[in-house]
Amino acid sequence: MSRELRELKTLEEARRVLLAALPPRLRQGRFPGRPTDLAAAVGHPLADPITAPADLPPFDRSLVDGYAVRAADTFGASEGLPAYLELAGEVPMGAPAEVPLSANQCARIRTGGMLPPYADAVVMVEHTQPWGERSVEVLRPVAPGANVVRRGDDARAGDAILPAGHRLRPRDISALAGLGFAQVSVARPRVAVLSTGDELVPPTASPAPGQVRDMNGPALRAAAAALGAGVLDLGIVPDERAALHRALARGVEEADIVLVSGGTSVGAEDLVPEVIEDLGPPGVIIHGLALRPGKPAVVGLAGETPIFGLPGNPTSCLIIFRELVAPLLRSAAADPAPPLVHARLTRNLSSQAGRAEFVPVRLEQRDGDTVAVPLLGPSALILTLVRADGVIRIPEAAEGLEAGELVTVEPLE
Amino acid sequence: MSRELRELKTLEEARRVLLAALPPRLRQGRFPGRPTDLAAAVGHPLADPITAPADLPPFDRSLVDGYAVRAADTFGASEGLPAYLELAGEVPMGAPAEVPLSANQCARIRTGGMLPPYADAVVMVEHTQPWGERSVEVLRPVAPGANVVRRGDDARAGDAILPAGHRLRPRDISALAGLGFAQVSVARPRVAVLSTGDELVPPTASPAPGQVRDMNGPALRAAAAALGAGVLDLGIVPDERAALHRALARGVEEADIVLVSGGTSVGAEDLVPEVIEDLGPPGVIIHGLALRPGKPAVVGLAGETPIFGLPGNPTSCLIIFRELVAPLLRSAAADPAPPLVHARLTRNLSSQAGRAEFVPVRLEQRDGDTVAVPLLGPSALILTLVRADGVIRIPEAAEGLEAGELVTVEPLE
Repeated sequence: MSRELRELKTLEEARRVLLAALPPRLRQGRFPGRPTDLAAAVGHPLADPITAPADLPPFDRSLVDGYAVRAADTFGASEGLPAYLELAGEVPMGAPAEVPLSANQCARIRTGGMLPPYADAVVMVEHTQPWGERSVEVLRPVAPGANVVRRGDDARAGDAILPAGHRLRPRDISALAGLGFAQVSVARPRVAVLSTGDELVPPTASPAPGQVRDMNGPALRAAAAALGAGVLDLGIVPDERAALHRALARGVEEADIVLVSGGTSVGAEDLVPEVIEDLGPPGVIIHGLALRPGKPAVVGLAGETPIFGLPGNPTSCLIIFRELVAPLLRSAAADPAPPLVHARLTRNLSSQAGRAEFVPVRLEQRDGDTVAVPLLGPSALILTLVRADGVIRIPEAAEGLEAGELVTVEPLE
Repeated sequence: MSRELRELKTLEEARRVLLAALPPRLRQGRFPGRPTDLAAAVGHPLADPITAPADLPPFDRSLVDGYAVRAADTFGASEGLPAYLELAGEVPMGAPAEVPLSANQCARIRTGGMLPPYADAVVMVEHTQPWGERSVEVLRPVAPGANVVRRGDDARAGDAILPAGHRLRPRDISALAGLGFAQVSVARPRVAVLSTGDELVPPTASPAPGQVRDMNGPALRAAAAALGAGVLDLGIVPDERAALHRALARGVEEADIVLVSGGTSVGAEDLVPEVIEDLGPPGVIIHGLALRPGKPAVVGLAGETPIFGLPGNPTSCLIIFRELVAPLLRSAAADPAPPLVHARLTRNLSSQAGRAEFVPVRLEQRDGDTVAVPLLGPSALILTLVRADGVIRIPEAAEGLEAGELVTVEPLE
C-alpha cells in the first residue's frame, strides 16, 4: 500500500474491479432481509414469501347494514307481500354473534359484523321496514351468501399471498395487516455512514478557527435514504487509528455497505486504507481514481461488506457516491438512473489526458437548442454542485471538448 | 345531515366541491413549513428561502497536502534551482494556524487545513523535497491563491443560497450542513390517520371472534408516506362520540389533512359526519359518492383542514384515498400520477347506470395485444386489489362495457 504501488484506476476499471470483488448477491442488488415494521416496509422487496397464517376474514361478515337472515325465509318476499321475520336481537360490533337464528328469525347487523350461527345472508336495511317492536318486514328476497363475505374468502390459511422479492405497496400493507403481520422481513440495504477528520464538528456546532462543519455525513445519509436505504449514522470519528477501526468494524458488523468520507488522501493521517486492510481480507481493492474530482477514493471489502472511502471534499464525495455506490442501491431499489440529456457545449474545456473529468453544467434553452453551460471553479465548492443541472464527463483519452460539441449530460439528483 | 338529505356525488362533482372548499394554498399543493431535521428534509420543498448566515468556508483552506507558502518566495523555482524555505511548523487539523509566516518560511499543511497568517498559496507535497530537518526544497513555483480555497469562496454571509419552494437534494443537504443548518423548515404535508370501529384490534393483536385487525390504518399510513407525507398515527378509536371528537380534533390541530376510516356508512354508530359537523364550519361538504366501491365516503373541513371519512372496507378505503386524497399529496410532492395504459377488455362488464364503478384488472399480453382481465368479486376482498395491475372505470352514464372494447387502465401504485 505504499504510495508508489498505488495505481490510479479509471472509473470503468474501478467498476469492473468492484463488481468482480462483490459477493454475487450484492452485485444483483439482493440484500439480506431484516424484520421491519409494516409502515417502514412499503416500497421494499420482501425477503421471504408470505403465506396466510390464518383465514381472512376470520369469520363470515356482513358487507352492509341490515338484517342477518336465513335466506330461505326471504324467498318470494316482495313489497306487496313482505316476509315477516322475528327480531332475535342485534349483533354487537367486535364481539361474537352468539344468538343462533331459528327459522323466520333475523338479527340486526352492521357492516363488518359477524354473522350469527345459521344465518347465511344479509338483507340491506333499505329493503326492510320495522314492523312493531319485535319484527321486521323484508321487502325483497336474498340468495344464500348475499351481502356476506365468508371466512377465508380473501385468503385461506396456508395460501401463498406474496412471493419473495415482491416490492410492497400500500395495498399489500393492508393485506399484511389483516393477516396479522406487524413486521415483515424486507431486503432493504443498510448503509453505515461516518466522517473522519480532526477538523470536523457536527452541523449543530459553532466551528472554532480551523474547524469546519461535517457536510459529507448529512449529505451521504440523505443520498442513501433518497435511494431507499436504511441509514446507520456513525457520526464523526477523529483521525485516530483505534477510533476509526472501532467505527468501521461496527459498520461492517451492522450494515451492508459502509461509507467513510475524509482521511483518504496522501497525508500524515491517511488511516482509512490502513484500517480497511486491518479489518481482514480481501482488504483494499481500489486506491485512487484517474478522475477529477474524486482522485483520492479508496474501496475495499471486509469479508463480504464493501467499504467506500470517499474524498473529504464535499463535491468529490457526492460524485464518487453517485458513480460507485448509488448503482448498488439503485439495483436494490429497482430505481432506474435518470435519463441522459444531450446538449451543445457553450465553451471549450481543456482536460488532462489520462484522467477523466466531471464538469458540472447548467442546462439552458437558447434559440430552440439545449445548451450545457460549464460551471467552473474548484471542486471543493459545494454551491457549484448545488447550482448544476447535471455533469458532463470528459473521457480519459481526450484533452478537452470544443464549444459547439454535442455532449451527453448526466442529470444530477 | 339526515339520510334523506344526502345526495350522492359523482367523483367529478366531489372533486369540484372539494377543490372549491379547500384553502387556495392546499389546492396548489402548498403546505405550511415545519422545522425538520436535515436528514428528513431531503426531497421536500423549502418553506423559506435560505440565506448564508456566515462565510463558507469560514477560513482560507488548503485544497491539497503540502506546504503553505508566500507565493512570491517560490517564483522562479525549478527542479534544477529549487527555492529553499525554512519549515516554520505544521498546521494542526481542526485548530487555528497561529504561526505567521515570515519571508522564506513555509508550514506543513494538509488538505482542509487552515492557512497560517501571511501564507497565500500551498505547494503540493509532490512538488517538494525535504532538505534536512528544518527546510524544504520547492521544485515548482505557485501563483498566489494556488491550491487554496478562500474564506467565502463558496458563499458569503448574506448570499441567497436556495429559494423558497426548492426541493432539497443531497447536495443541498451538504451545503446546508456546511452553513450550520441542523434543521430547515420544509413544506411537507402532515397527514393524521385514525381508524374507527369497535370491532378493530391492532395488527399485532389476536382478534377474538367478531374482531378483526385494523388494515386501513397501516395501509393509509403507508400510502401517505409513499407520497412523501409525514404521518401522525392516531391509532384505533372506538365508535364513541367523545373519543372520536377528541381524536379528530387532535388531527385538525396537529396535521394538514385528517384521514379517518370506518364509521361512515348508514349505521347506528355513524359518527364521523356528525363529529365533523361538531368540529365547526364549514363541516361536511360531501356525503356519499355515486361510485362503487366507495359509496360511503364523507368529506368535510374544520376551518381550513380537510377531513376525509373513508370507507371501512379496505379496498374502498384505498380507492377513495387514491381518487380524492392522493392528488393533494402528489401536487405537494410534484409527483406525477403514473401514466395510463390502454388495453382490450376480455369480457363484458355490467354496471348500474347513475353510479361509476371501479373494476380492478390484471394486464396480460395476448397475441401481441395488451388485454385487461377484470378481477371480479366483492370489493371487501383486499387480495383482489393486491393481485390487480390497475383499475378501469365504468362511467356513471354507462350500463357496462363490452368484451373487446379498448379501455383506459389507471395503474395502481
